[in-house]
Amino acid sequence: MASTGTDKPDPEAATKSEVPHPPPKGIDYFAVDVGLRVLLFAATLTAVVVMSTAKQTEPVFVPGAPVRVPIAAKFNHSPAFIYFVAALSVACLYSIITALASLGVIAKPIYATKFLLHYAFWDVLILGIVAAATGAAGGVAYIGLKGNSHTRWTKVCNVYDEFCRHVGSSIAIALFASVLLVLLIMLSVFSLHSRIRE
Amino acid sequence: MASTGTDKPDPEAATKSEVPHPPPKGIDYFAVDVGLRVLLFAATLTAVVVMSTAKQTEPVFVPGAPVRVPIAAKFNHSPAFIYFVAALSVACLYSIITALASLGVIAKPIYATKFLLHYAFWDVLILGIVAAATGAAGGVAYIGLKGNSHTRWTKVCNVYDEFCRHVGSSIAIALFASVLLVLLIMLSVFSLHSRIRE
Repeated sequence: MASTGTDKPDPEAATKSEVPHPPPKGIDYFAVDVGLRVLLFAATLTAVVVMSTAKQTEPVFVPGAPVRVPIAAKFNHSPAFIYFVAALSVACLYSIITALASLGVIAKPIYATKFLLHYAFWDVLILGIVAAATGAAGGVAYIGLKGNSHTRWTKVCNVYDEFCRHVGSSIAIALFASVLLVLLIMLSVFSLHSRIRE
Repeated sequence: MASTGTDKPDPEAATKSEVPHPPPKGIDYFAVDVGLRVLLFAATLTAVVVMSTAKQTEPVFVPGAPVRVPIAAKFNHSPAFIYFVAALSVACLYSIITALASLGVIAKPIYATKFLLHYAFWDVLILGIVAAATGAAGGVAYIGLKGNSHTRWTKVCNVYDEFCRHVGSSIAIALFASVLLVLLIMLSVFSLHSRIRE
C-alpha cells in the first residue's frame, strides 16, 4: 500500500515466490462445515421421523353420533404438515450430498472456492424452504394448541396431546435446522471473505 | 506466481504501485444491490399495508343468536398474521437502512468488501424471518381458504372474500420479498467471490 518505488524488491512478492504451488488462500472451515452438515442431517431426519410418526387415536364426540367415536390424528391431515415433511426431507437429502461433497473438498481442496460459492447459493434456497415450512407448520400447530375464537377453530391439543407433542418437537427441531443452515451460510460467506487479500 | 528471483522488480507490485489508492478489486454490483433493496422496500411496505388494511365486516350466524350478527375479520385476530406484519415491518426498516448504506458504498467504495460480508450475514437472518412469516401466514390462510375437515376448522374465505384477497395478496408479495432477499444474498456472495484472485 505505502510502497513508493517499483525497483525495490517487494516483501510480499518474496513471500509469494517461496511457495511453488500456492496453497488455497484464506482459512478453511470445511471440517466445521462437515460437522454442521452432519448435524443438519441428524436434525432434519429427526424432524421428519418425529412428524411422520405423529399419530394418535382418541375417542371424540362427533356431531350426530350418540357415543364417542375413535378418530385418528395424523400429520397428513394438514397440508402444512405434509409440506413440512416434504421440505425437511429435501433438506435431509441435501445435507447428505453436501456433507459428502465437503469431505471431498477436504481431501482435494483445489475447488474449495467454487464449492463455497455453490454452497452459499444452495444453502440459501434450502434455508428459505425450511424456514417457510417451519413457519407454516408452526402457524397451524399454534391454532391446534390455542384454537382461534374469532374463526371458531377449536383447539385439538387438549385431546390429541401426544400428537401435539410430536408436532411441537418436530417444529422445534426444524427451527434448530434453520439455525444450522444460517450458520452454514455465514460460514461459507466468511470463508469466501477470508480468501480476499486486500 | 512464476517469478524465480526476489531481486527482480515484480510486475504485480509495479502494477499495484502505479495506483496510489488501489480501487476495489472484483466487480461491483452495488447499483444492482440498491435497486433490489429499493424493490424489497416497496414489496415489504406493500405487504405490510395490504395485510394491515385487511378488514371486513360481514353478518354471520352465531350459535345461540337468532339473527345474523355483523362480525369483523381483522388481521390481528390471528397470531400468525401479527407475526407476519411484525416480520415484514422489520424487513422494511432493514431494507431502508441497507439501501442507504449501499448508496454510501457507491459513493465511497473503500469498505465495499466489509459491507458485502455484513450484508450477506444480515440478509440471511432477515430471509429466515421473512420466509418463516410467509410460511406461517400462508399455512393459516390456507386453512381459512379450504378449512380442515379432520379438525372441523371451517373455511372463512367464502364469507370474508375481500379479507382473504387482502391476505392472499400480502402473502404473495411477501413471497416475492423472500425471492428478492435470496437474490440479494446471492449477489453479495457472488460479489465477494469475484474479489478473490486465484
